[in-house]
Amino acid sequence: MVWSRQRKTFFLLSGILGMLLVILVNFSPLLGAKAAEPKVLPAIAQRPAQATANCNQKTASPSRYQVIGNADTVQWGYFSKKSPPVVAVHSKDYVTMDLVTHHAGDDYERMIQGDPGIESIYRWTATEKGVKERGPGVHVLTGPVYVCDAEPGDLLEVKIVDLKLKPSGNPKYPGKTFGSNAAAWWGFHYKNLAQEPKPREVITIYEMDATGKQKWAKAAYSYKWTSQTTPDGKSHATIDYPGIVVDHGKVKETVNVLSGVKVPLRLHIGAMGLAPKEADVVNSIPPGYFGGNIDNRHVAAGTSMYYPVSVPGALFSAGDAHAAQGDSELDGTAIETTLIGTFQFVLHKQAKLAGTILDKVDYPLLETPDSWIVHGFTFRNYLAELGAEAQTKIFQLSSLDPALKDCSTKLRDFLMNGMNLTEDEAYSLMTVSGDFAITQVVDGNWGVHGIIPKAMFDSKKVKAKPIA
Amino acid sequence: MVWSRQRKTFFLLSGILGMLLVILVNFSPLLGAKAAEPKVLPAIAQRPAQATANCNQKTASPSRYQVIGNADTVQWGYFSKKSPPVVAVHSKDYVTMDLVTHHAGDDYERMIQGDPGIESIYRWTATEKGVKERGPGVHVLTGPVYVCDAEPGDLLEVKIVDLKLKPSGNPKYPGKTFGSNAAAWWGFHYKNLAQEPKPREVITIYEMDATGKQKWAKAAYSYKWTSQTTPDGKSHATIDYPGIVVDHGKVKETVNVLSGVKVPLRLHIGAMGLAPKEADVVNSIPPGYFGGNIDNRHVAAGTSMYYPVSVPGALFSAGDAHAAQGDSELDGTAIETTLIGTFQFVLHKQAKLAGTILDKVDYPLLETPDSWIVHGFTFRNYLAELGAEAQTKIFQLSSLDPALKDCSTKLRDFLMNGMNLTEDEAYSLMTVSGDFAITQVVDGNWGVHGIIPKAMFDSKKVKAKPIA
Repeated sequence: MVWSRQRKTFFLLSGILGMLLVILVNFSPLLGAKAAEPKVLPAIAQRPAQATANCNQKTASPSRYQVIGNADTVQWGYFSKKSPPVVAVHSKDYVTMDLVTHHAGDDYERMIQGDPGIESIYRWTATEKGVKERGPGVHVLTGPVYVCDAEPGDLLEVKIVDLKLKPSGNPKYPGKTFGSNAAAWWGFHYKNLAQEPKPREVITIYEMDATGKQKWAKAAYSYKWTSQTTPDGKSHATIDYPGIVVDHGKVKETVNVLSGVKVPLRLHIGAMGLAPKEADVVNSIPPGYFGGNIDNRHVAAGTSMYYPVSVPGALFSAGDAHAAQGDSELDGTAIETTLIGTFQFVLHKQAKLAGTILDKVDYPLLETPDSWIVHGFTFRNYLAELGAEAQTKIFQLSSLDPALKDCSTKLRDFLMNGMNLTEDEAYSLMTVSGDFAITQVVDGNWGVHGIIPKAMFDSKKVKAKPIA
Repeated sequence: MVWSRQRKTFFLLSGILGMLLVILVNFSPLLGAKAAEPKVLPAIAQRPAQATANCNQKTASPSRYQVIGNADTVQWGYFSKKSPPVVAVHSKDYVTMDLVTHHAGDDYERMIQGDPGIESIYRWTATEKGVKERGPGVHVLTGPVYVCDAEPGDLLEVKIVDLKLKPSGNPKYPGKTFGSNAAAWWGFHYKNLAQEPKPREVITIYEMDATGKQKWAKAAYSYKWTSQTTPDGKSHATIDYPGIVVDHGKVKETVNVLSGVKVPLRLHIGAMGLAPKEADVVNSIPPGYFGGNIDNRHVAAGTSMYYPVSVPGALFSAGDAHAAQGDSELDGTAIETTLIGTFQFVLHKQAKLAGTILDKVDYPLLETPDSWIVHGFTFRNYLAELGAEAQTKIFQLSSLDPALKDCSTKLRDFLMNGMNLTEDEAYSLMTVSGDFAITQVVDGNWGVHGIIPKAMFDSKKVKAKPIA
């Protein structure tokens, strides 16, 4: 992909606009128990001309920022080390941000209408486009967040402090949040359909209680995708462009779908990660060492992701919010919805990692209250391994077998480096107590995750975490 | 494999001897709460000349049988439609049987010595062999159990009423049970060793509290496999023959292995299933439509497996007992140990399946208190699909990708046939709520299992189970 002049200008403008929209607010009530610790900062917007100016203004207590998801605070379809940050944070600062679903166009009325930020992202007329660049991937990613002092070789811990459903902005649907599951052409099931017409793409819209009191989703209705025309006059017989707003006059809605079935909610984040160093524009779909679209349902509130930093400032972005997904994301997507996420960023400098439980972690590692979870992929670093055409080739080489090899190698190394085990101890232990599951088979670089429970270790013998 | 005259004679003799050892006992105290229902039968051994003679003597209440695991009640390394049954049962009868581990030779003193049954199975001198035929697979399988009236097309439900550790028979180890994890040449990790010497096989012996009060295993010691000589004078540089008794004078024991680590127990059965119709002797290692060596850690007490019957009498056998295993059984084995299992057999006649939740189930299906679990394999029926050389070829074609395809197809069909969903509903639901995990990658026909939670369905709308 050519790094176009147009894209550069777009980045510059969107970066400046994005910074203007970063609002520093006191939102401690949102944070629950975790909120007590950091002191409240003045509720006055800081609007530096460059995000990194913030890095010279360290405060005694962690700062809290809020990033409203709109056309100026998101990038659509890629991670990029060239993207100007929307906010700069110091280690231990908090950021709350909207994680706007890229499937909201499946039902404009329920998932876009009445939310000014989401409307601005999806805005597309014959003459104007809210987010000018879409692609090569599909995800609406909020950010990037620049982490002051983060350098290649460091490890960035991203604590998910809170995740909640964002209510529909449409007053017609008070207290409701909606999500979409697309059984799409990139799904694992697509060539394995029993019934006619074949092939077909099917959208199922799910409804949820936005308060989160009801812990389930239920299907509202479904429709078979029909050819849609975008404002540029192009026809889309399949879901081949991000953010197509479906004309509901052209589809036939089926109601009484999954009647009586209550799908348990599992709020989590499908895609979040850091900008990789290998390319200027990295398709948001295949995950990698930098994180990205890992689509692991365990990436939920109360967990921490650890990512290796490969560019200055780390450049964290997040999106692809999920209300529920099973291991494998079989038909192509989760229940894609818009969530509000609160993150705390904790920077672990490279020099402080030796001898800690995070020693030599150079892959995305998840810590939950109960377990450590390592992520393996068909290719550990497809951007480096597959050469100049990596971003195309990766979609032709998908397989679970090498993903399990990568994952089991990482878990072995975690047990050896982080838990002080010998190789023989590591393999025996991960065999008798470690579970390997299929993360996703729809993102090119297919994923397997390995789960090792924490409770079986003697806490007195476990290596400490680094002091950040 | 040729069906030899020697094997026929062996089967005939062992069948007759096996029947003599089936003891009909009152063991209701073993069964806990489940025991109240069936009436106690006279504690007098029934010793029919042929197992199937039992089929003409149906009693009003379920009968209870006990099969002690010894050289006359097990077959080593295969399922066979030609094996004479050790006991015949009517639908709803109970059988308690020893599930003797095939890895007991890794530590004769702790896992064989003092248990007459296990000693008889492993007995091998220059002139005598307790179980004359070993192979082509590895598992010591107790059975088969003949189920009266079972015919091809029926579904056999095997309820695991109870599973408990069998205490070591050696008075030197009171109240202890031991198990072995073999990181072996067939392990997924074997070509992925970081440290020297490469390659190597490593045995780790685990110790457990036989009362089951302590819910964990801890490693006792480990050793690297060295060349072992069997009584027939053959050398075994690797673990290439079932039941080799290791000479501990020839290995170096490493103690303080996995110090302080408590491996959570997950008692389950690695290999159980019915005799397949496709061949006279079927290697016990690759699982298939008939069940067999599925190695799913969820096959535990309180669950039911459903198997399609393909030969008259169903011919159920079980072995490969596991104290703990993670999804994938990565290095080659679980913590292999000897358990005592109690099963209830419930026969579902083909004619009664239509319209029930089990309609069209022609694959091994697991029901747990919380979920339905379907099992997929690299090949759905490798015995039929791979032709005359199926039992060799299967080990060369292992892959998870087709196993996920098979598994997701079965789960779709279960949701359509058993849960009354459309194909579009099924794919959406299994994507947003169904978890696909790696069952095993060490048994040739690699496995993926798909889990669908029960609680999300409206119980009033769920199809009934068949009345047996």
